[in-house]
Formats: sequence, structure tokens, C-alpha cells
Amino acid sequence: MGQNFFDNEIVFRGYCELRDSDSNCNILMEQPEMAQLLPELKGQCVLDLGCGFGHNCIEFIRRGAAHVTGIDISKKMLTVAQRENSHPDIEYINMSMTDIDRINGCFDLVYSSLAFHYIEDMPKLMADIARLLKKGGILLFSQEHPIYTASENGQGHYLFDELGNKSGFCFSHYQVPGERTDEWFIKGRKYYHRRFSDIANAIAWAGLCIQNVAEPVPDENMITKRPKSDAVHNPLFLIIKAVKL
Amino acid sequence: MGQNFFDNEIVFRGYCELRDSDSNCNILMEQPEMAQLLPELKGQCVLDLGCGFGHNCIEFIRRGAAHVTGIDISKKMLTVAQRENSHPDIEYINMSMTDIDRINGCFDLVYSSLAFHYIEDMPKLMADIARLLKKGGILLFSQEHPIYTASENGQGHYLFDELGNKSGFCFSHYQVPGERTDEWFIKGRKYYHRRFSDIANAIAWAGLCIQNVAEPVPDENMITKRPKSDAVHNPLFLIIKAVKL
Repeated sequence: MGQNFFDNEIVFRGYCELRDSDSNCNILMEQPEMAQLLPELKGQCVLDLGCGFGHNCIEFIRRGAAHVTGIDISKKMLTVAQRENSHPDIEYINMSMTDIDRINGCFDLVYSSLAFHYIEDMPKLMADIARLLKKGGILLFSQEHPIYTASENGQGHYLFDELGNKSGFCFSHYQVPGERTDEWFIKGRKYYHRRFSDIANAIAWAGLCIQNVAEPVPDENMITKRPKSDAVHNPLFLIIKAVKL
Repeated sequence: MGQNFFDNEIVFRGYCELRDSDSNCNILMEQPEMAQLLPELKGQCVLDLGCGFGHNCIEFIRRGAAHVTGIDISKKMLTVAQRENSHPDIEYINMSMTDIDRINGCFDLVYSSLAFHYIEDMPKLMADIARLLKKGGILLFSQEHPIYTASENGQGHYLFDELGNKSGFCFSHYQVPGERTDEWFIKGRKYYHRRFSDIANAIAWAGLCIQNVAEPVPDENMITKRPKSDAVHNPLFLIIKAVKL
């Protein structure tokens, strides 16, 4: 059972406001890159792990997917998804992605946006996903970047030059994978640091082959909304596309 | 043509001394991990890119390799290799690894220790390597870690706590791939920063599939020779093993 962080009332309200802001990092960096890496979806079966409000599930249907299964551990999220993004070919299931070994099915695409860093056992998750994918099927996921998740004891911070511009990033404990906590709306958000090698090995050992990796920076058109210097030094997101051999 | 940095007399002498020291990072971290990831070599044909003194070439023969081709841009290095590590089944060639598209052959293993960060065009290098590998053949290489190569203007440095122990690492310009220079025996060592994504994509686009990634820390037995804190925060090496599909 994964942590049900998003059903906390303060987190849920804070997250709703953040998602409504048009200068948040997801919209500026993560979503455009994920959209670019999406395979052709016409007639395809899709599993969305940590589907949240169902924005991506409904987008997959718009792109021609035959069926979408969206799972999320948060009941509050799925209530919004059912209300705002329902469709006859979308099935929302309240379930932790640590339990997807209970799902039967065969998917062309397993998709997950910014949720895997909440899961402790990545080798098991990857093995479960590989079992659910057709041969030639695609896993496309984003997560917080290993450099960003590394630091213990709040040692992750930017350096600033004399003009107040970001000039670098400091971090610690990159080589010590494991649980981390920080403050995000409330104290005690729990997530897991994994090195690039831990992530790549979990993917490879499950029989998936990495096709594409992205560490997005904001699109030039979007930089007016957020200074580029935010993204030059420290990558925030890691995006990986892999195929089942 | 790649840079011939190691034929500089000061660099060459400094490097010889460093290689003779038993607490250098190569011996503590890079070499044990590379050895662990070596495939079975009995009867195999091996190409060693940037073979230097030929230590690995002669080791491949000891492990049963049928033939080893070692190439290096440095004539001084190859003079030592010919003198100290010659063998009827080893051929040393004075050549930049930017020119391996001139080699004909079909290899079971392409190996390279700590040399790829000197090469500007990694997609071309990976395509050349893929062409030289048999189907099912292995590429095993190490290079300086992307976090370590990132910084411009000397902004890469450790943080220290009040006891003088390393407590973190600061870097800059991770998201800006390209040429870097630093001082290593002489001013003006030139190398190339690439992000994880740049490296992984060059491998994938060449038709190779990543099997294993390592970011080594010193072996427990070796830590007496070098404080573990050196390696906890900032990984120095990135090692990747990939197979030609």
C-alpha cells in the first residue's frame, strides 16, 4: 500500500491551486515533453498510474485510445476525475500502484506522470508494469529528477550571484538511495531518492529497453513566465520512455 | 581527430604517477565495477577505445579473449603498452576514436575506460561502435559522471561541515551540454559535458539497449585508503553496459 498523501485536505487544496496556475513547472516543462514522447494512440489500450484528476486519461481518448484505465490512491482526486473527465471508455479505479499485480490486462502504453518517486520498491513496480505490457508496448513516465531528490537534511539549495540570479545548485547524499521527507503544503511529504543507475537498472532488469530519456528545460515561449535560470543548473524532472522487448 | 592531451610531457608524467598510486579513484571505484560488468571473454574479439598503457588489453587476453585491438591517440601511451603489455593476439593502433569508422571488423565487446568524455560527437561515436559490434555484442564504458562534468567557471565544489567533512556538492550548468575546460596537470584540459539524457539517447539511437548502469562508490575494504564521504555526495564515474539488439 502506497502513501495516500493527496487525500490530506491541505495538500489537496494546495495541489488544486497549483494545477490551476499556468506557470507551474508541470505545465512549463513536464507536460510538453511527455506529450512529445507519446506514441500513436489510435485504437490502443492505456494504463495511467497515478492518474489524479484524469486530465491525461481524457487526452488519451481525444487522441484515439480505445480504452483507458486510470488508477489513483486518492479518492478525492478520483471524485474530481469522475466529475470532470469521465468517458464511457475510461475506467477509474481507486488503487495504489503498489497493487497493480492484481490487475489483469494487456496494455499498449503504461503512462505515469510525476508519481513513481512516491513508490518505495521500483524493481517490483517495473516488473509489474512489464507483465502488464504487450510485447512492443511502451512505458512512458516522469518523476522528480535524481539530483533533485538526492538531498537529506534540507541541503538541496540554489547558489545565487551578486545580482540575485541562480548560479548553481548544491545537493548531498546522491549516492544514498532511500526515503526522504520534505515540506510540500504540509510537513512530512515522503518520497524516495533513487540514482539514475537504480532507475535504469530497474527498467532493464524488468526486460524493458530505454528508447528515450528527457531532462526538460522550459520551452523558449514559456520562459517569460518563469526565468530560464531556474532550469539551467538543476534539472527538476526525469522522463523515460522504454519498450518491452 | 580528437585532442591528443596525453602526449603532453607534463600530463603524461603526472598521469603515470597517478596510475601508480594505489588510492586513485580509478583503482578504488572504476576498475572494480568495470571488472564486475565484463562479459565472458573466452574466444571473443575485443576493441579497447583509448587503451592507454594496455593494462586492460592484456587482462582481456588473460581472461581468454581470442584477439584484442587497442587504439589510442597518444603515441607515448602506446609505446609503454607495446613495451609492457604486448602479446601476439593484441594489436595496438595509434588512432583517434573519432576515426574508428575506418576500422573494419566485427567485435563481441567494445570497451572504453574513462575516455568518452574527451569526444565531442557522442551520437557519431555510438553509431560507429554499433556498426563494429556483432548482434548481441556488448558495449561497456566508463566516463566522468554528468554531475561532475557539468560545471562552468569552476563552480563545481564540495560543501564542508564544521568538522571539515564533505557535506554536499555544488555544481552549475548541468542543462547546458558542451565543451568544458579545467586544470588537470596543465591548464586547458578540454572535455565535454553531456547530461544523462544525452548519453542515454546517443546509445538508444544507435540501436543499443542499456543493460546495466553503475555509479560506483568505493568498496568497503578500500575506504581506509580514501574517506567514504568523498563519494557519498557526488558520483565521479558513470558506467554503462549496453547490448546491440
